Amino acid sequence: MKRVKAFAPATVANVSCGFDILGFALDSLGDTVELVAKESPGLTVKSIKGDGGKLPLEEDKNTCSIAIQAMLDAMGSKQGFDIYLEKGLPLGSGMGSSAASAVAALVAANELLGNPFDKKDLLPFAIVAEKAACGAAHADNVAPSLLGGFVLIRDYFPPDVIKLPVPEGLCCTLLHPHYQLNTSDSRSVLRERIPLKDAITQSGNVAGLIAGLFQSDFELISRSLKDVIAEPYRASLLPGFETVKSAMLRAGALGMGISGSGPTLFVLSKGAHLHEKFGSEAKKIYDQLGLGLDMYFSKINTQGGGLIQS
Amino acid sequence: MKRVKAFAPATVANVSCGFDILGFALDSLGDTVELVAKESPGLTVKSIKGDGGKLPLEEDKNTCSIAIQAMLDAMGSKQGFDIYLEKGLPLGSGMGSSAASAVAALVAANELLGNPFDKKDLLPFAIVAEKAACGAAHADNVAPSLLGGFVLIRDYFPPDVIKLPVPEGLCCTLLHPHYQLNTSDSRSVLRERIPLKDAITQSGNVAGLIAGLFQSDFELISRSLKDVIAEPYRASLLPGFETVKSAMLRAGALGMGISGSGPTLFVLSKGAHLHEKFGSEAKKIYDQLGLGLDMYFSKINTQGGGLIQS
Repeated sequence: MKRVKAFAPATVANVSCGFDILGFALDSLGDTVELVAKESPGLTVKSIKGDGGKLPLEEDKNTCSIAIQAMLDAMGSKQGFDIYLEKGLPLGSGMGSSAASAVAALVAANELLGNPFDKKDLLPFAIVAEKAACGAAHADNVAPSLLGGFVLIRDYFPPDVIKLPVPEGLCCTLLHPHYQLNTSDSRSVLRERIPLKDAITQSGNVAGLIAGLFQSDFELISRSLKDVIAEPYRASLLPGFETVKSAMLRAGALGMGISGSGPTLFVLSKGAHLHEKFGSEAKKIYDQLGLGLDMYFSKINTQGGGLIQS
Repeated sequence: MKRVKAFAPATVANVSCGFDILGFALDSLGDTVELVAKESPGLTVKSIKGDGGKLPLEEDKNTCSIAIQAMLDAMGSKQGFDIYLEKGLPLGSGMGSSAASAVAALVAANELLGNPFDKKDLLPFAIVAEKAACGAAHADNVAPSLLGGFVLIRDYFPPDVIKLPVPEGLCCTLLHPHYQLNTSDSRSVLRERIPLKDAITQSGNVAGLIAGLFQSDFELISRSLKDVIAEPYRASLLPGFETVKSAMLRAGALGMGISGSGPTLFVLSKGAHLHEKFGSEAKKIYDQLGLGLDMYFSKINTQGGGLIQS
């Protein structure tokens, strides 16, 4: 009986000025999917660990089986799989939970099928799953989870995905305060039309961020990490956002933004040494608000989803 | 008597998706300024050649003297100069005419004053002159004319100017059809508010263009050279625009856009071999419209303004 295990990393999407077009992968958090090839057709989600019973086992609702089915359909294959999902990151936190599951499932299935697809070509199947899970066919979580590093999604029709360099020493601290945030609320606060001058400011900043990544220019990255399109509206949904952001910048962060549509916040820094300071400053603020806080520290994952050798 | 001569190149601003934030310098077109240091204070524009008598000689209206005066004021200097300007590019064509004059004047003055400023630090004085000439303190002509290559203007307050790499073999054909276009008309057709989705498309394209320049990826550059913010509105002011654009892309252009606020169009290509074809195709179209056409071919100037050895 053929079986294989794959891991795919958590991700930060909507990277500040890169709203809707830029994401990056995290090193130390992610989901694991084990697949067993069946003799008969059909996908069966056998077990999910670490989700507190919240994720659906039905194969037409689970992000792993939806992704694999899209892949099988593209191949005209009837191969069946048993699916064992182990969640390694919190649901609904804005860290690309559904994307990590879909990507891990696809990497594992591709291996068991004899690698009919290049890794990059798995992306459309992950986008199908993302659409089912989130209602929108966005790629700024699945693309970095699949490819690693910073990934630009220049266009969707067809997907035009560009992997960007990661400056040595760039690190991320994730702050996950304990409150629920509805993705549809996060969408609905955005304006359908925005001032032209804000669009120009945003494009200048994203251009600066891309140049900063290529040049390993941390100061330019820091100056560019400003979102004038989404953050000013979404911040009002996030208790303590402005206070935490000011504290992180004072503590030496290159920048801070909302990870995906929140509530998790990402803090980028040069080197790992500031992590503890970020954590203690943030904890003080959330304590005052009566909110619990989980913190994670991660380098930028540059490999993306891959097999786990057993 | 100390005298010195400087050249500064013509420039393309509003580079497609880089509307208002990106410009590049041209190799074969530009203005020359000769300065003579006077014994007494005061700036005198002694002569202007090649402008058909259209440019002002008054030192509070001429872009050369305004730029130099801003520089002298910053130094607290009373040094006087006689100014001899030779225009090498057409006025009001969208090729950065006023910027080239200002930059050449500043480079020459800096030399005669013993180089008190680094080249990059001349930018604020050129912006002062640009504001006087155009009514807006934009920097996407003066910055590439000064520094050469592709230049990103990430922000204005204070100016944050980033020089970008130029892929080997990237060439530009300029099409200057003979009709007048008012810069204020070009501004007034723009929308004050734009759809959020257009802003996201634009930022994805500019991010792709920046990545393409760093990676010398001509296909990515080509896919990214799309402006959804200004071009769709401005094109209606430009006779034959869509027809010419289609013809250029069919002929092998990486992309085509409006240079500055027009009427000149820039056509980017990989290598010089397509220049003749671009020219003959464009000429056919403008002939049918009863419009004359000047054409220029240029590599990308990577040096920016500099002294001319006599």
